[in-house]
Amino acid sequence: MSWTRRHLLTIEELSPEEIVTLLDTAASFKEVGTRTIKKVPALRGKTVASLFMEPSTRTRISFELAAKRLSADTISVTAQSSSITKGESLKDTAKNIEALNTDFVVLRHSAAGAARFLADRLDAGILNAGDGAHEHPTQALLDVFTIREKLGRVEGLEVLILGDILFSRVARSNIWALTKLGARVTLCGPSTLVPAEFAKLGVRLTQDVEAALRRADVVNLLRIQHERQRKTYFPSTGEYSAIFGLTSERFLLTKPEVLIMHPGPINRGVEIASEVADCPRSVILEQVGNGLAVRMAALYLLNGAQGNAQAARADKG
Amino acid sequence: MSWTRRHLLTIEELSPEEIVTLLDTAASFKEVGTRTIKKVPALRGKTVASLFMEPSTRTRISFELAAKRLSADTISVTAQSSSITKGESLKDTAKNIEALNTDFVVLRHSAAGAARFLADRLDAGILNAGDGAHEHPTQALLDVFTIREKLGRVEGLEVLILGDILFSRVARSNIWALTKLGARVTLCGPSTLVPAEFAKLGVRLTQDVEAALRRADVVNLLRIQHERQRKTYFPSTGEYSAIFGLTSERFLLTKPEVLIMHPGPINRGVEIASEVADCPRSVILEQVGNGLAVRMAALYLLNGAQGNAQAARADKG
Amino acid sequence: MSWTRRHLLTIEELSPEEIVTLLDTAASFKEVGTRTIKKVPALRGKTVASLFMEPSTRTRISFELAAKRLSADTISVTAQSSSITKGESLKDTAKNIEALNTDFVVLRHSAAGAARFLADRLDAGILNAGDGAHEHPTQALLDVFTIREKLGRVEGLEVLILGDILFSRVARSNIWALTKLGARVTLCGPSTLVPAEFAKLGVRLTQDVEAALRRADVVNLLRIQHERQRKTYFPSTGEYSAIFGLTSERFLLTKPEVLIMHPGPINRGVEIASEVADCPRSVILEQVGNGLAVRMAALYLLNGAQGNAQAARADKG
Repeated sequence: MSWTRRHLLTIEELSPEEIVTLLDTAASFKEVGTRTIKKVPALRGKTVASLFMEPSTRTRISFELAAKRLSADTISVTAQSSSITKGESLKDTAKNIEALNTDFVVLRHSAAGAARFLADRLDAGILNAGDGAHEHPTQALLDVFTIREKLGRVEGLEVLILGDILFSRVARSNIWALTKLGARVTLCGPSTLVPAEFAKLGVRLTQDVEAALRRADVVNLLRIQHERQRKTYFPSTGEYSAIFGLTSERFLLTKPEVLIMHPGPINRGVEIASEVADCPRSVILEQVGNGLAVRMAALYLLNGAQGNAQAARADKG
Repeated sequence: MSWTRRHLLTIEELSPEEIVTLLDTAASFKEVGTRTIKKVPALRGKTVASLFMEPSTRTRISFELAAKRLSADTISVTAQSSSITKGESLKDTAKNIEALNTDFVVLRHSAAGAARFLADRLDAGILNAGDGAHEHPTQALLDVFTIREKLGRVEGLEVLILGDILFSRVARSNIWALTKLGARVTLCGPSTLVPAEFAKLGVRLTQDVEAALRRADVVNLLRIQHERQRKTYFPSTGEYSAIFGLTSERFLLTKPEVLIMHPGPINRGVEIASEVADCPRSVILEQVGNGLAVRMAALYLLNGAQGNAQAARADKG
Repeated sequence: MSWTRRHLLTIEELSPEEIVTLLDTAASFKEVGTRTIKKVPALRGKTVASLFMEPSTRTRISFELAAKRLSADTISVTAQSSSITKGESLKDTAKNIEALNTDFVVLRHSAAGAARFLADRLDAGILNAGDGAHEHPTQALLDVFTIREKLGRVEGLEVLILGDILFSRVARSNIWALTKLGARVTLCGPSTLVPAEFAKLGVRLTQDVEAALRRADVVNLLRIQHERQRKTYFPSTGEYSAIFGLTSERFLLTKPEVLIMHPGPINRGVEIASEVADCPRSVILEQVGNGLAVRMAALYLLNGAQGNAQAARADKG
């Protein structure tokens, strides 16, 4: 299929075919990463701005390196570099960045819907790098990319998402991507962190972690998000680990071909035992490399759609 | 005319012909910004260092992107990255940067004259990105570029600079650029912020904001600079806005073809009403894009002069 | 000789021939720095990550510019950009960086042995940019490069290292490099800062600064490292200066062709008088430029060894 979207805002709005196109494109960019010269000229002379209003070195570096490997120029604005944003609205900050002939804005923001808000107001292509507790589409894409690459398919698999679902844009985007591609999703965690309304999304909710682990083809562990939690949703990280942590003992319950995934950074000894994080079934570091390929693919496809839209306008004009 | 300056330190020292050369060069670089590949090889293999001893993400990013679009390598040193500057004089810091075979240093500093101080001591070309309350030459160039582009000329126009003149390097550089190109300049603001000695620069001073607005072809609003003011020069921003702010009501006094300008970031509701900032006569965002073209032009011309100076030395040697 | 090392961790482990290969390679890269286009394509499509867990703008910028002049892509992670490192071990942080298909990691860390720790655990090439009080190999290489270039040789020279030896990785790496190349090294400073066990390294220890200055062909002054000293090792910087500082008076004791060196940033009036730092025998700023050439050489040689290792694996596979 030909890609027509100029923004990557949510997984919810993507069709299964669009997700597959992203994954197939990422697969060819992953091959580029294995070459001696890991660079292609696809975005030469284009400018990619990262606008991170919440700190996230990890995701920002992945997007910026993806842009550089596509030969784009990059600029980086963070909330800490406050002079650009002091007393300024998100719209004004973004409009100023766009006025520098910026082609793409990669946005991380604490408010759900911030990426779409910009997409409605800017000509630049917008890539959502996490908007509040809403979505984090490239994380979900790299997760399903990793599953498909390792297990050969996504359809029909049992995927367990274990941990802090309530505050997790990663969980929301993963649920959309996995169910669209035909996986069965189970959510597990403390009842305070796995709200009942998630059942509406077509996923199973459970607190029986051991049964869920036995059944899973993939276990995706979420980081316990201390920072965004105002109240205490469980007594202590020690208690969390004792009941829901993927200890070595609980790992023994899983299938031999299980995939252990985590969006990072991991809290060793909290949501995952150190030995499990480093075991052969863990693909946590491969997820990082796949994230780069997925972000190159997203920029590449959006750039093609932008070029087509410009060509169409030129034809009419 | 051929350009011979190796530094861009002030507008005061430039001839009208030099200003026009800068504007004409910027016009051709503005065209580059509309291409699919917004990049030219003019400064390939050259190094541009930005040395920002005061925070200014906006101006720094504009200069750095200008350098990248000319294919230069860039390095960035800010006062926050303090290890390079701790207990070190400006001269020592700059000499160390130059020792890395740096071709150009873009300097933002709190002291008037800091850029010339470096130009007298370094071989690298110096671009003044704001020195205290003295000058900010590329801001004035982008302002007159915008006026010339929008209104077809600068000569004979009535330009009103409204706001905090006392602390404003933007005002000083604009007064030089506008009067050299034949515009008539009026300054308006609270009497505490518009000192009488400015009359010596050949400009009109007034506190009658409404008469000034009626007469103006261009209104350039300055940001109220809270941070650099030690004492209170007016009772409150609310009172400032009531008397001198460009409200929707006052905007109705202006000519139909008036240009509304602001160096950004704007304080919506203080020096300018939100609706006026976003109205069709406002060119605030176009100023941002023109800043990039002007900075590319400055780097390009200085680089040519540097090459000529080196060739002349090689001939003699 | 052909270079086979994939990491640059210490001077201690290098043979004299390897040091000479590094210096000869740096000499050809120094010539590149004098060209109009200061760029070579040797590392095009490679990625160099700088991971600085201690602040050091100066060394980080030198490494990053070296990488850019070799046409590599660069990413930069500092301890301040804490989200990547919060609660994460050095190994996990580095593994995450490597997972982005990073070819080289430049590491600055407060712990002696940190660079070797990573070299044992990563496939990427590791360049030690300072590990605790242990080694800082590129600083020593730029120092001997400067000596060889200025005085035509290293062998047989009398080199005085004056100042805070106890806390100095620069001193340790310099002692190895100088003695391997046949120089005679004298250490001088307050007895609390020049521990007796240094005599085991084949160097002379003295507190007679005037005799040592008379004898020296090269004086390498070390910065007084306030920040890393927990206890007071001498009464005050004023007293240090009075007894061990290179004042104008003491400079008169030195040979006419003496070289005055300092790794920077200098404390004018503490370890060195301002006039001495700026006199014709001072090569402090040339050291900075030579640092760039040495770091380009190190990246270039390590990249060649990495390519050979990959080719060898491909032959076997």
